[in-house]
Amino acid sequence: MRAINLIRKWMEDAGLRTWVDQMGNVHGRVDGANANAEALLIGSHMDTVVDAGMFDGSLGIVSAISALKAMHVNGKLQKLKRPVEVIAFSDEEGVRFQTTFLGSGAIAGILPGTTLEISDKREVMIKDFLKENSIDITEESLLKLKYDPKSVWGYVEVHIEQGPVLEQVGFPLGVVKGIAGQTRLKVTVRGSQGHAGTVPMSMRQDPMAAAAEQIVVLESLCKHPEEYLSYDGHCSDSTVKSLSTSLVCTVGEISTWPSASNVIPGQVTYTVDIRAIDDLGREAVIYDLSKQIYQICDKRSVSCIIEHKHDAGAVICDSDLSSQLKSAAYSALKKMEGDIQDEVPTLMSGAGHDAMAISHLTKVGMLFVRCRGGISHSPQEHVLDNDVWAASLATLSFLENLS
Amino acid sequence: MRAINLIRKWMEDAGLRTWVDQMGNVHGRVDGANANAEALLIGSHMDTVVDAGMFDGSLGIVSAISALKAMHVNGKLQKLKRPVEVIAFSDEEGVRFQTTFLGSGAIAGILPGTTLEISDKREVMIKDFLKENSIDITEESLLKLKYDPKSVWGYVEVHIEQGPVLEQVGFPLGVVKGIAGQTRLKVTVRGSQGHAGTVPMSMRQDPMAAAAEQIVVLESLCKHPEEYLSYDGHCSDSTVKSLSTSLVCTVGEISTWPSASNVIPGQVTYTVDIRAIDDLGREAVIYDLSKQIYQICDKRSVSCIIEHKHDAGAVICDSDLSSQLKSAAYSALKKMEGDIQDEVPTLMSGAGHDAMAISHLTKVGMLFVRCRGGISHSPQEHVLDNDVWAASLATLSFLENLS
Repeated sequence: MRAINLIRKWMEDAGLRTWVDQMGNVHGRVDGANANAEALLIGSHMDTVVDAGMFDGSLGIVSAISALKAMHVNGKLQKLKRPVEVIAFSDEEGVRFQTTFLGSGAIAGILPGTTLEISDKREVMIKDFLKENSIDITEESLLKLKYDPKSVWGYVEVHIEQGPVLEQVGFPLGVVKGIAGQTRLKVTVRGSQGHAGTVPMSMRQDPMAAAAEQIVVLESLCKHPEEYLSYDGHCSDSTVKSLSTSLVCTVGEISTWPSASNVIPGQVTYTVDIRAIDDLGREAVIYDLSKQIYQICDKRSVSCIIEHKHDAGAVICDSDLSSQLKSAAYSALKKMEGDIQDEVPTLMSGAGHDAMAISHLTKVGMLFVRCRGGISHSPQEHVLDNDVWAASLATLSFLENLS
Repeated sequence: MRAINLIRKWMEDAGLRTWVDQMGNVHGRVDGANANAEALLIGSHMDTVVDAGMFDGSLGIVSAISALKAMHVNGKLQKLKRPVEVIAFSDEEGVRFQTTFLGSGAIAGILPGTTLEISDKREVMIKDFLKENSIDITEESLLKLKYDPKSVWGYVEVHIEQGPVLEQVGFPLGVVKGIAGQTRLKVTVRGSQGHAGTVPMSMRQDPMAAAAEQIVVLESLCKHPEEYLSYDGHCSDSTVKSLSTSLVCTVGEISTWPSASNVIPGQVTYTVDIRAIDDLGREAVIYDLSKQIYQICDKRSVSCIIEHKHDAGAVICDSDLSSQLKSAAYSALKKMEGDIQDEVPTLMSGAGHDAMAISHLTKVGMLFVRCRGGISHSPQEHVLDNDVWAASLATLSFLENLS
């Protein structure tokens, strides 16, 4: 709520008309010269992960607002060719409710009404949490948050790269050609709870040992998919090749029940995050991984449940928007540095972004900003002041040349 | 605090003089015929683990109080040969503060003064928690809780077996010949925190993958110590043989930091509980396990810290006390069932008990009570009504024949 109020104030300072919707997204809109034209949406997310830095998400909101503020100060806001709407999305990461794109998903109309019943670890439902913060939402009003595709022209998002590519090539900005598809699984292993001192090793059905074996297998499979992938021979050579360079798998959360050092757990739960550029390849990995997880559980006489918490196909960015972003980045860097030798690089995104959700509504384009060491989701996340400046300047150039 | 008040009331109903000490232990004492003689201590613990049943610990308190109440009703309390003191220990399991025997350790004088500074997961220290419950304790007063060994004759504890032996041999009660030694480790693995989508598998220093590999190794080592144990050739054949029947290892708790499904953890922490009848064998296992944990960390360029949170040597029960308990059990069962064919069995304890702490103060003896399926530390923990009755009756017989 503090972030909402702060961002709203910044938007108003930039001459935008503002409102907060029932999913907690902050909107700031200017009609420009043609209030009835299709609108450009531009934004990113307000939330971030636990123990993270300050650039992930917020950089895209701040650069959009600061570009519009510059136009406001120079009296150019009303000359915009079409309406421009900055949206600060409320929840992209899904840290609390284990479901990504809550904010952008509502705007894109891809959230089912039952989303509001999803609970956090303390059994607080999304709708109750919103109500506690004076936001009343019903299933009906959630579905009404969806924008009419006819009213929207396109979506642009500026975001830190969160990877090492731009730093390696020595360029502050890059154009994103596509976003990797992503699957998030929750694996629950149930065994026999017991006293750590009295159940012989040979009589145990220990879900922790099973989970550990599964996580070791997961890592091997994702490090060397070419050695493990069977998927009934359905994977083409190009899919396997794409996987061996882009596939990443992560176990970020794990917990035992009842979680005492002197009790053999009755249950272990862990998350698996799997991403790849190739959607068929990702499916193949999930198929093989699931098979191996079940085999390990069978062998150990414990039970396994694999839940798909999130599935998002890879998204390819719009080529026209990408060209315009490329020109804008070039012009911004030229303004800052004088002559530019190299072309603005294009790269893939391994991380998911609100653009994935909004791609269900309209064409999308993204600009990446270099970050130090490819580090993100960490307190060490850092972007050079000059690169923040370049991001805002590129956004300004993009808006000034809006067709 | 509710348990303390309830147990204290029961003790007073049984004609005992009661008090609560500064570690939250409840005492109920009767002087008997000779107030200056060495006292028999008898008791068990009030606490249990999360999601457990109602017999672990409390059965030993209830059977002692009910036996003394029977003597009180029959006017035999003042005829006891020596003072008898029931102690309901406050914290044996160590669930909250990750340190076992807080109650009995204070009486035995084996807790260092710094114990009071130990914190729970929310950074609340033991001394502050006690203060919140109106119990003021200082380092000095903790050390004064230690009983003078000259004032104590011996310690007896009745406890559920928490294992399958008595059920297998079909006997309600058994005499404990010794308690396995136990080591509790906390392993912390630190790697490179990062975004789950952007760090290639080959560039990761993932502490979760390292921990999983370590837990798999731990299980193999403890299932088949004869195949793994090197310990520089110091293990005798008898030690290895003892380990292969008695060694048990458990990972009961594990957590990641920052614990989000889309973040490669920066840190993983897990507990290891290792128990064996043979102390040298247990040391050999810890030596080998530690070596392998460090090797895995080296190989993966992550760092490992292994902390010894708790070490307790195996305890051998006093043979005289054991004989007296055996006779008492025999006499109780004879009273209940008429003729008894078999001898009262003797068995080892894989679980730790307050008797381990009190063995530093005086000789100890223990009686085990059969439980269903060997299940304990679980809601399915169950003791037959008749076996509860047998435990109280055996305690009564032991007290009536006290020398």
